[in-house]
Amino acid sequence: MRVLMIGDVVGRPGRKAVRELLPPLLQEHRPDLVVANGENAAGGNGITPDIAGELFAGGIDILTMGNHVWDKREAMTLLEEDERIVRPANYPAGTPGRGYTLVKAKENLQVGIINLSGRVFLAPLECPFRLGRRLAEEIGALTRIILVDFHAEATSEKVALGWYLDGLVSAVIGTHTHIQTADARVLPQGTAYITDVGMTGPRDSVLGVKTELIVKKFLTQLPVRFEVAGGIIQLEAVLIDIDPGTGRATAIQRLQHYGPA
Amino acid sequence: MRVLMIGDVVGRPGRKAVRELLPPLLQEHRPDLVVANGENAAGGNGITPDIAGELFAGGIDILTMGNHVWDKREAMTLLEEDERIVRPANYPAGTPGRGYTLVKAKENLQVGIINLSGRVFLAPLECPFRLGRRLAEEIGALTRIILVDFHAEATSEKVALGWYLDGLVSAVIGTHTHIQTADARVLPQGTAYITDVGMTGPRDSVLGVKTELIVKKFLTQLPVRFEVAGGIIQLEAVLIDIDPGTGRATAIQRLQHYGPA
Amino acid sequence: MRVLMIGDVVGRPGRKAVRELLPPLLQEHRPDLVVANGENAAGGNGITPDIAGELFAGGIDILTMGNHVWDKREAMTLLEEDERIVRPANYPAGTPGRGYTLVKAKENLQVGIINLSGRVFLAPLECPFRLGRRLAEEIGALTRIILVDFHAEATSEKVALGWYLDGLVSAVIGTHTHIQTADARVLPQGTAYITDVGMTGPRDSVLGVKTELIVKKFLTQLPVRFEVAGGIIQLEAVLIDIDPGTGRATAIQRLQHYGPA
Amino acid sequence: MRVLMIGDVVGRPGRKAVRELLPPLLQEHRPDLVVANGENAAGGNGITPDIAGELFAGGIDILTMGNHVWDKREAMTLLEEDERIVRPANYPAGTPGRGYTLVKAKENLQVGIINLSGRVFLAPLECPFRLGRRLAEEIGALTRIILVDFHAEATSEKVALGWYLDGLVSAVIGTHTHIQTADARVLPQGTAYITDVGMTGPRDSVLGVKTELIVKKFLTQLPVRFEVAGGIIQLEAVLIDIDPGTGRATAIQRLQHYGPA
Ligand SMILES: [Fe+2]
Ligand SMILES: [Fe+2]
Ligand SMILES: [Fe+2]
Ligand SMILES: [Fe+2]
Ligand SMILES: [Fe+2]
Ligand SMILES: [Fe+2]
Ligand SMILES: [Fe+2]
Ligand SMILES: [Fe+2]
Repeated sequence: MRVLMIGDVVGRPGRKAVRELLPPLLQEHRPDLVVANGENAAGGNGITPDIAGELFAGGIDILTMGNHVWDKREAMTLLEEDERIVRPANYPAGTPGRGYTLVKAKENLQVGIINLSGRVFLAPLECPFRLGRRLAEEIGALTRIILVDFHAEATSEKVALGWYLDGLVSAVIGTHTHIQTADARVLPQGTAYITDVGMTGPRDSVLGVKTELIVKKFLTQLPVRFEVAGGIIQLEAVLIDIDPGTGRATAIQRLQHYGPA
Repeated sequence: MRVLMIGDVVGRPGRKAVRELLPPLLQEHRPDLVVANGENAAGGNGITPDIAGELFAGGIDILTMGNHVWDKREAMTLLEEDERIVRPANYPAGTPGRGYTLVKAKENLQVGIINLSGRVFLAPLECPFRLGRRLAEEIGALTRIILVDFHAEATSEKVALGWYLDGLVSAVIGTHTHIQTADARVLPQGTAYITDVGMTGPRDSVLGVKTELIVKKFLTQLPVRFEVAGGIIQLEAVLIDIDPGTGRATAIQRLQHYGPA
Repeated sequence: MRVLMIGDVVGRPGRKAVRELLPPLLQEHRPDLVVANGENAAGGNGITPDIAGELFAGGIDILTMGNHVWDKREAMTLLEEDERIVRPANYPAGTPGRGYTLVKAKENLQVGIINLSGRVFLAPLECPFRLGRRLAEEIGALTRIILVDFHAEATSEKVALGWYLDGLVSAVIGTHTHIQTADARVLPQGTAYITDVGMTGPRDSVLGVKTELIVKKFLTQLPVRFEVAGGIIQLEAVLIDIDPGTGRATAIQRLQHYGPA
Repeated sequence: MRVLMIGDVVGRPGRKAVRELLPPLLQEHRPDLVVANGENAAGGNGITPDIAGELFAGGIDILTMGNHVWDKREAMTLLEEDERIVRPANYPAGTPGRGYTLVKAKENLQVGIINLSGRVFLAPLECPFRLGRRLAEEIGALTRIILVDFHAEATSEKVALGWYLDGLVSAVIGTHTHIQTADARVLPQGTAYITDVGMTGPRDSVLGVKTELIVKKFLTQLPVRFEVAGGIIQLEAVLIDIDPGTGRATAIQRLQHYGPA
């Protein structure tokens, strides 16, 4: 089976990229499941019911989140109600929403999707290594096809989790840095891995935000109100082929597609 | 003219990669100048005169450094004495060594090499944006061919500096995260850019260190003594073509080469 | 001469403390100059012209600031126009406002007030050690009576700056942690020092904010909108006696006063 | 009953302070139990069996630790074997040593001592709020007299934990910043609280370390090998009176004592 995992969708240009660049990709690669990170989908930060709906209508089956999950107030009830959205599982007990979900992909294959957050340079959530392994084992009793979106900053933490879960899950896909890395590979025990899948939104920007605003912030150290950039759009993703019998990945391929503003 | 910029050389396997994987690359691409980041060359951390000498003998013309520059005591005098080694220019006034250097490449072309450190999640050095621009302008009076090694953690800071120096330098090459990114491109005003050029050392590792040690550190939060990993070696680099008349880059190409343990 | 330095004034309860607890203090101790940190004066974060005016009317001569200086938009022009307000001097060149000011205290004595920000766990501004010494020497050509508000988090950085400026300024008074420390003393070369002067606002709170909100934040790791607490008010300050001939401090005394809600 | 809690004992001068300044304090205040933070007792960082033995012989009944607990290798077995030493309880499951202990104080009163670490600016251990409450409740089934050493950096986290455990434990005593705070009080439900009890070691220093070394570090941003300072010694502590029937604190008093080099 084949899964398409799309990097952080940023604001209006990101949603436009989904609308315009995803359909030909679906046509060409015919994935059985499409997952996207949606933590920046609403105006650059957070998610709302309307915007989640727009993304689901556009062909995305599951949305994962990250540190921006709570930026829009409506996310609280949305995450409680919609089983197609997962937020980092390592938030404390009692946090709204779910940290993993199970979905029926094409051909009736069940797939588990886990969302985890890193802790280096990020909030002190539960240990993503220990929790990741525990969830992988729990979900492993139900299905062998398991995807992990590891939303983290430090390359050391991301690479280490990839090795740690190698053989326990079908893929560990990094998100959060918004820059696609060139290290996609299948690890020895069958886990597809990439440190960061990248960003879906305005190409000529700083991680989706207008360049001049971020430069101003670095130059002045003053607070700056961020705005999503315009211009050429990009969609960054990975395509993962998984043996449905074993849950082992057989291939992972990086995708970078561009379109006019 | 053509420059080869090699990502952080890590310990003995990194030096082996230089010894074994660099010669065929030189043969194939015939760069006029070879630069490598050497902050991890000595046992994983820092640099010594012997090891710098080994790298220069192996075909490297210039070594750049980063946050590990001071890990070996001998670096203090080495950086004072050897003009072929640069450390981040934004250390405070009075710091040993130099933050940029000028070198004659093949065909008598003069090249300026600037090393800068990021400040996000790193030490509070001088502003790399302001200093970077000032040095680019100063060196720009002497030569149009200028390379910047931006040793930084956060993708936002790296991408922003690339845009900020676009048109002022020939290339902004990111180092420090040890994972090559897939965003190499020439920016509109002629600056070649990549967020991170990657790592030269043991492939099956966490940034060059034995995987089980880093995993242990994340699992236990106890201090762990790091050791450089073994196994298959890799050399990661970018090849940059620069118009010597204008100093503008015309192409940037990612390289990833592997060899037996 | 005698200076009263008041810790971070937090919101409405802080201003009430200034209104109700400051007059008897002025009566009792008769300071020649009253300085207060005002970075939290407006609703817990930032400063506005109205609120600065209220504090000046209440007997405060000079307001210092800190990391919250830019939280209210009106601060930009206020800091440009009003010489009685200083923000950390180590913001980059071009930042609105001033980092130090000179004021005539009673008996025509001129006093220099410098505001500096720490960099440990805070923004990477200019080095407060190097800049602090330079400003102390510059202002020292005009007056020997110099006060430094060092707005910083880490005790190591604060204590070190106290020692570093000992003999160059009359006092180094720490702010930002909102908890008064018990280490007020005159250092050997005549600089009065305290790691933190404390907070002026609601006593039964977490640094001025409603306790249940901060506890909720720590328990849930979710974003929480902070509100200034109510209840018993406190005014925390230090009283510094300075020999006007030498600029050396002769005494520093901690004050903690309380009043009904 | 009466407990003396002594702030971080730093190196040889700290142990000298225990040897010379503690006996008269014991004479004067006659505590039923003496607790000290020992994370810096061995050469400024960590603990060894010999040095723990020296402190126990000097009149200390229980040693608490902090982020430096693992700096000396011998600590691993020491903490496993000696029930009189506790390290932060919120290290991951499987960490050597214990996070709390029970001790018989004078008059056969049983006392529980819990050690917790903060997470703001420190390692991402288990939540000290949730774990602190759970341990307080568990130990509360055995004794009402419970002391917490909260080893943390941020004043917000320390104050918040004090309020959170108010009424559940007899005292929450902050350590780690090495600067005594002036906010000792008994909270409304009977928990004695202070943000930081301070440091026991060389007075004229930066948190126990030679001033010139720390200043050099801030000025140069280069690595500096720390050495414990000499000169006048200090012992900082709090004295807590607890009603043994209810476990509620009735008083908390700060102590600062000094002696010749
Ligand atoms: Fe994102
Ligand atoms: Fe993110
Ligand atoms: Fe490196
Ligand atoms: Fe580095
Ligand atoms: Fe404040
Ligand atoms: Fe502040
Ligand atoms: Fe300590
Ligand atoms: Fe500590």
